[in-house]
Amino acid sequence: IGLDTSREIVKSGPKNLVLLDRIDNPAAIAELSALNPKVTVTFYPYDVTVPLAETKKLLKTIFDKLKTVDLLINGAGILDDHQIERTIAVNFTGTVNTTTAIMDFWDKRNGGPGGVIANICSVTGFNSIYQVPVYSASKAAALSFTNSLARLASVTGVTAYSINPGITKTVLVHKFNSWLNVEPRVAELLLEHPTQTTVQCAQNFVKAIEANQNGAIWKLDLGRLNPIEWT
Amino acid sequence: IGLDTSREIVKSGPKNLVLLDRIDNPAAIAELSALNPKVTVTFYPYDVTVPLAETKKLLKTIFDKLKTVDLLINGAGILDDHQIERTIAVNFTGTVNTTTAIMDFWDKRNGGPGGVIANICSVTGFNSIYQVPVYSASKAAALSFTNSLARLASVTGVTAYSINPGITKTVLVHKFNSWLNVEPRVAELLLEHPTQTTVQCAQNFVKAIEANQNGAIWKLDLGRLNPIEWT
Repeated sequence: IGLDTSREIVKSGPKNLVLLDRIDNPAAIAELSALNPKVTVTFYPYDVTVPLAETKKLLKTIFDKLKTVDLLINGAGILDDHQIERTIAVNFTGTVNTTTAIMDFWDKRNGGPGGVIANICSVTGFNSIYQVPVYSASKAAALSFTNSLARLASVTGVTAYSINPGITKTVLVHKFNSWLNVEPRVAELLLEHPTQTTVQCAQNFVKAIEANQNGAIWKLDLGRLNPIEWT
Repeated sequence: IGLDTSREIVKSGPKNLVLLDRIDNPAAIAELSALNPKVTVTFYPYDVTVPLAETKKLLKTIFDKLKTVDLLINGAGILDDHQIERTIAVNFTGTVNTTTAIMDFWDKRNGGPGGVIANICSVTGFNSIYQVPVYSASKAAALSFTNSLARLASVTGVTAYSINPGITKTVLVHKFNSWLNVEPRVAELLLEHPTQTTVQCAQNFVKAIEANQNGAIWKLDLGRLNPIEWT
């Protein structure tokens, strides 16, 4: 989803796209740069599980260079319920810490200009895949956190919405571990359901970015984009 | 809530009550023992943030001594959104790890007898206090995890339900930090709402234990006990 969304974002034509990931992928950066020469695409290595202070230092480098940043997308995620601590650290704590770090630069209470946060959560945040209870719970947490952020926008000047993909044909869901192996065939069972492609998901992601609606809970499933009512 | 619930549990008369907590409280143990001499009350020091292997070792000691354990209550919790990592470690990871550890002894796939898990979550799992988005999200995660556990009962033989207290007059809510100080008066504002006492909450907690309903999402608010429908 990350690469296809980056492609769609580059096509939509921002001035800059900064990619943060654990592993550099020079071929992908080159491809994205070639896709739209008007967009400057840069890469920084970043692991969302590093301490808050380290994230702040990296963000300072980026803000010093670009002066302003309009949108932060928190998209790091793993799906492996054999790795409890890491699932929670990447899917939940990583999103909280990266968001907390960028507030130093955006919070209007510090004279910041505000900003927009798009958190990639998952439909499992509200309809869990119970065979991966740790993954599903980490996504429920990321979703709850995002909804709270949106309600804090009047205080911080920072708006937020969540992107909740349904089952998408990615390497993530091709094969993964259930909690205590409660269902060894969970990946196969999941892929028996109707799915969507990463390109469909990415195109709807960019539509959600363009809608730019504080507090929206976007469901991106089966090639469609729908707002969810939270009751 | 922990001590008053322990009092109500002792009154209800199980054979054993084992208390696990970071800090020993001999006066409380003595009081509980005196309350009902037929109940053996014991204490072990336990910090829910220790690695899984350590929890398994402690549980082995307890299972070796008691032979069987019927009910695990995961009740450790902190409320302080200045402590992001610790909030997540105690309120979410602690519940997941303690649950995962006890499966070694209970899981029917290993020849275990099954068991019952009662997880203390919070109404903030579904109605967040957005000024403490990390706390609320950690409780949303614990709730989602518990709901998944209940759906896995046919595989594991272990049933589960959640105990979700509303605002209760505890030391926890007397004073606490909001995320990035978005609302310095959050504790005062919260306590302007109607609340319940810890005794009311504890009595309803024991009623929920007696109901013993797999998958129940119990709301314990304003002195009442109600099941929540999750849609």
